[in-house]
Amino acid sequence: MVNETQHTCSASSSSKSDGGSSSGSESSKDSSRCSTPVLDADRHERLREKMRRRQDSGDKWFSLEFFPPRTANAAVNLISRFDRMGAGGPLFIDVTWHPAGDPGSDKETSSMIIANTAVNYCGLETILHMTCCNQTKDDITGHLQKAKRLGLKNIMALRGDPVGEEWEEEVDGFNYAVDLVKHIRNEFDDYFDICVAGYPKGHPEAESYEADLRHLKEKVFAGADFIITQLFFRSETFLKFIKDCQAIGITCPVIPGIFPIQGYHSLRQLVKLSKLEVPQEIKDVIEPIKDNDAAIRNYGVELAVSMCRELLDSGMVHGLHFYTLNREVATTEVLKRLGMWKEDPRRPLPWAVSAHPKRRVEDVRPIFWASRPKSYIYRTQEWDDFPNGRWGNSSSPAFGELKDYYLFYLKSKSPREELLKMWGEELTGEESVFEVFTCYITGEPNKNGHKVTCLPWNDDPLATETNLLKEQLEKVNRRGILTINSQPNINGKPSTDPIVGWGPSGGYVFQKAYLEFFTSSEIVTALLKVLKKYELRVNYHIVNVKGQNITNAPDLQPNAVTWGIFPGREIIQPTVVDPVSFLSWKDEAFALWIEQWAKLYEEESPSRMIIQYIHDNYYLVNLVDNDFPLENCLWQVVDDTFELLNSPTQQ
Amino acid sequence: MVNETQHTCSASSSSKSDGGSSSGSESSKDSSRCSTPVLDADRHERLREKMRRRQDSGDKWFSLEFFPPRTANAAVNLISRFDRMGAGGPLFIDVTWHPAGDPGSDKETSSMIIANTAVNYCGLETILHMTCCNQTKDDITGHLQKAKRLGLKNIMALRGDPVGEEWEEEVDGFNYAVDLVKHIRNEFDDYFDICVAGYPKGHPEAESYEADLRHLKEKVFAGADFIITQLFFRSETFLKFIKDCQAIGITCPVIPGIFPIQGYHSLRQLVKLSKLEVPQEIKDVIEPIKDNDAAIRNYGVELAVSMCRELLDSGMVHGLHFYTLNREVATTEVLKRLGMWKEDPRRPLPWAVSAHPKRRVEDVRPIFWASRPKSYIYRTQEWDDFPNGRWGNSSSPAFGELKDYYLFYLKSKSPREELLKMWGEELTGEESVFEVFTCYITGEPNKNGHKVTCLPWNDDPLATETNLLKEQLEKVNRRGILTINSQPNINGKPSTDPIVGWGPSGGYVFQKAYLEFFTSSEIVTALLKVLKKYELRVNYHIVNVKGQNITNAPDLQPNAVTWGIFPGREIIQPTVVDPVSFLSWKDEAFALWIEQWAKLYEEESPSRMIIQYIHDNYYLVNLVDNDFPLENCLWQVVDDTFELLNSPTQQ
Repeated sequence: MVNETQHTCSASSSSKSDGGSSSGSESSKDSSRCSTPVLDADRHERLREKMRRRQDSGDKWFSLEFFPPRTANAAVNLISRFDRMGAGGPLFIDVTWHPAGDPGSDKETSSMIIANTAVNYCGLETILHMTCCNQTKDDITGHLQKAKRLGLKNIMALRGDPVGEEWEEEVDGFNYAVDLVKHIRNEFDDYFDICVAGYPKGHPEAESYEADLRHLKEKVFAGADFIITQLFFRSETFLKFIKDCQAIGITCPVIPGIFPIQGYHSLRQLVKLSKLEVPQEIKDVIEPIKDNDAAIRNYGVELAVSMCRELLDSGMVHGLHFYTLNREVATTEVLKRLGMWKEDPRRPLPWAVSAHPKRRVEDVRPIFWASRPKSYIYRTQEWDDFPNGRWGNSSSPAFGELKDYYLFYLKSKSPREELLKMWGEELTGEESVFEVFTCYITGEPNKNGHKVTCLPWNDDPLATETNLLKEQLEKVNRRGILTINSQPNINGKPSTDPIVGWGPSGGYVFQKAYLEFFTSSEIVTALLKVLKKYELRVNYHIVNVKGQNITNAPDLQPNAVTWGIFPGREIIQPTVVDPVSFLSWKDEAFALWIEQWAKLYEEESPSRMIIQYIHDNYYLVNLVDNDFPLENCLWQVVDDTFELLNSPTQQ
Repeated sequence: MVNETQHTCSASSSSKSDGGSSSGSESSKDSSRCSTPVLDADRHERLREKMRRRQDSGDKWFSLEFFPPRTANAAVNLISRFDRMGAGGPLFIDVTWHPAGDPGSDKETSSMIIANTAVNYCGLETILHMTCCNQTKDDITGHLQKAKRLGLKNIMALRGDPVGEEWEEEVDGFNYAVDLVKHIRNEFDDYFDICVAGYPKGHPEAESYEADLRHLKEKVFAGADFIITQLFFRSETFLKFIKDCQAIGITCPVIPGIFPIQGYHSLRQLVKLSKLEVPQEIKDVIEPIKDNDAAIRNYGVELAVSMCRELLDSGMVHGLHFYTLNREVATTEVLKRLGMWKEDPRRPLPWAVSAHPKRRVEDVRPIFWASRPKSYIYRTQEWDDFPNGRWGNSSSPAFGELKDYYLFYLKSKSPREELLKMWGEELTGEESVFEVFTCYITGEPNKNGHKVTCLPWNDDPLATETNLLKEQLEKVNRRGILTINSQPNINGKPSTDPIVGWGPSGGYVFQKAYLEFFTSSEIVTALLKVLKKYELRVNYHIVNVKGQNITNAPDLQPNAVTWGIFPGREIIQPTVVDPVSFLSWKDEAFALWIEQWAKLYEEESPSRMIIQYIHDNYYLVNLVDNDFPLENCLWQVVDDTFELLNSPTQQ
């Protein structure tokens, strides 16, 4: 008889077996499956579940703490840092609450907005800190409501430092973090995951270490899900603390806060703030080298690595929380040396997912925003639901206006001077624009010796995948086919392929060849003649800034251009060429000529007029080769076009 | 400049070009695209649109008229005939209204139910005749409402023959077909397409040919969409008629009714009913051979072919309507000789679609009912909407109860005696059951010399596609792996492939290998051990009649096992292995052992007990090989299982 039970699930349907009169309907009613294929459990779990799953599987993890920036420029840099450090695979990041910096406001430097950006635009699981001291119930509730609205799901509940020297308890006020924990649970039920702070040496203001442990237990019993500790300098400190926690009945995860020493002054300041004492053996090493930043950092990394190893080896620690001080080098180095920095080339989907809960099911996007995912997220932030399974199922997409090209998270990482060096201080004609595109593709320096590492449509260097097309792209850009997006055709590569793979392992990924470019009306006229020969094979959309639109797409239907087949799942088709969205994208694509490029130059200057001319007169073209199992014919299409243009009898 | 305009569509979005401040949202709002890819325009057009499209493209078409059967057995046969003649590609069929036969009732012999079956279960565009003479307004409205509810979209509006000798007009009653046309348009607006009858020789009761033409014009102007004529014997008769119609301003399609003479008596009777005169030259031929049915039929075919050729050559005729008298041979022969019988091996989807309007968008089904599409349609007839794009998007499927195995359209085409000859008058053990399955696969006669052309789960002989697996299937059935459903893996064959292709041309179709069978618990125990080796590659569901269910499917997700990639379209995935539906299917699959097989034998007879034993103790297993680009591993899985069973140390 069947005695294997590892996968047995009792069928929820009839156990009657009277020969056919039982109905299957009950069995179906009980179905608990979700409506979207679970490609990546992380997108569907809350933070405490992710922690539990990692703990169960023995997968060690890390997290990163940042503080909000002081200036708008610093915000742009911090977001780039989130993207870079996010690549190492933190389980979450957290953003501190800066009471003096208007932390709940809409300013780009506020804690709230930085956390929102991390979740929405960088796709990072994020904890927002919040302090309650000296705030009214309404203020706090307002902040929490806003956090929820923005897609934040985790709060680190803190008391915060009282203002003024003498602190007194307020009656019915928020006097301790535990009051905030209770308030969150009262007002928001189980919506948020709540984190609280633990003090391995006891809170400096607590009557005793034991009293502080009791306070911690109160916070946990009031509804906190896990604990992150204050920094400490010796692993024994933490290990004693976690045992003491367990001894008084705290069973939730306790995560050690790791502070890699990065410099003499930052250490001094932190120690002062946290009222901790630096052990003598550390002082002894540091004092003599206090002016040698590199030496101190090396020592700090060394120290952190060995302390982390001790913690992990103890078997009591499953994750490490890093106080980064908004710096990359030391923390990244520690993580790499611990083997915990995992730049996983595998992607759950071929584009960067957002961590906003309402986008959890999103698994289809138009290809046009492939290099501008943050802009896509921004322009669709008001959508109530996101396409899932099939783009055409979504109601007609209404894209938000792109009213502000200077939103800090959409801004180019390069400052104006650098852009001018890359794109030309002075343009002499359309050909100098062709050259900029060509240099971006080849990676060779331009005439003035500067590498072109970005374009208005691509803030990052060429994707590895696009590199597969480099030679052909160079050739066509030189001749005025100004490419801004492309992908090769792929006929069933393993989903684990380091360049084109995505999704869970064991699957196969496919692509139709895609090419998108700006070009002159003269080239478009020839191209259209050539495309007649490819009528059934190539779908095209050709549009100018005025919206004149030429296409052979049937019935405004989307064309799936990237799809994957996975074991035990429905087909996933994450990118489509959607004729309707293309008209919204063309507004953005044309505007970028002006907003990001033309405006670098003086009004009425020849350079500006050249870009303006291109903006006014060029067409934006996209081509799809539907015959993905055959050799990509789009290069042949372009060759044929130039051949026609060069033939003496072209008309 | 761009001067190609064949595909130009003015973009509905902004014609502003002020450099980026225009929003794309308007452009999207105007989208008129439908939510499902138009794979087959026929599924989305109404009958009059189909006619118009065929007329524009010059594609000649035909239609077939049937009358309702007298007995339940005749109904079963008529439905098989619909399936067979439907394969030739009629634009529609029509079912006459038999006032004496309770035509609007739920009886399996009623006009209403036969038309409903043609639409729903045979996927045929269908016109229901309806007569109005001697009926109340409420009766008529009731019939029309019921027709609408059942998915019928076309009515042939007729007066019908008055009861009694002397007919008098009723005040405010339905006296003429035109009254019925007006009533339909008044009560149902444009919902129905309406057909009316034309009389090339004038209606026998009309004052004159001219008066009759004027009545016809009235019917058209009251809202009829097209005309089908009474039969006639000479093409000139029809050609004069259609010219006369045009002359008085009738512009809708006029379709000639063709009556291939099939026998002496049927001709006599029809002529008597229709008060037509058979031309002397025809009488002269027929009278001498009146007792030779074959000769008369040959002559009738000959006559019909040459008359149809004249009609088609006139350029005035785009479609031909055949009075079949519920017979196949003559009409099929005429159509074949005209080159109009088109058994198109290409299918819009890999399964038989239903023509019910609410199923227009349906493009995903569980694979389990592949050989029982009518049962699937029956069990899902109450669904409000149908999965479109992705099975998992549909709410949990609630399958209707299978309360009556004797619904005429679900009944086996073979009578009990034949089934006994195929499946065994007397079974001697499980092995005799294995033999039945094996003979079904091989097509070889059984021990008593009878071919096994159906099984309870497959009322038709093996599909061409399954033939690809014949050799392996034979081997495993012989050993007690009793297969009821399977498909080979396909890695990107053209969508026009005659065996596995489906959908529009220019696409590529794919399949994962699938195997479904009943087998003993002993084999299941070994199989489960073997499956561990294939854990990531093979998904399985194993269930017994009691509902004990063993699976490795992740999260109850459906597994797409057939999909297609087409130019300019989203991915279509028409068949899935759905873990939830499988539990409803298993009820049906197990019940068929009893209802269709065991009950052939006396209660308590050994044969019946053998089938009952299998029903009670066997498992239903399905296996999917996810690695569709590799060689199908399911045969290896089965081989490994038998090897394990045969090894002396299997435990």
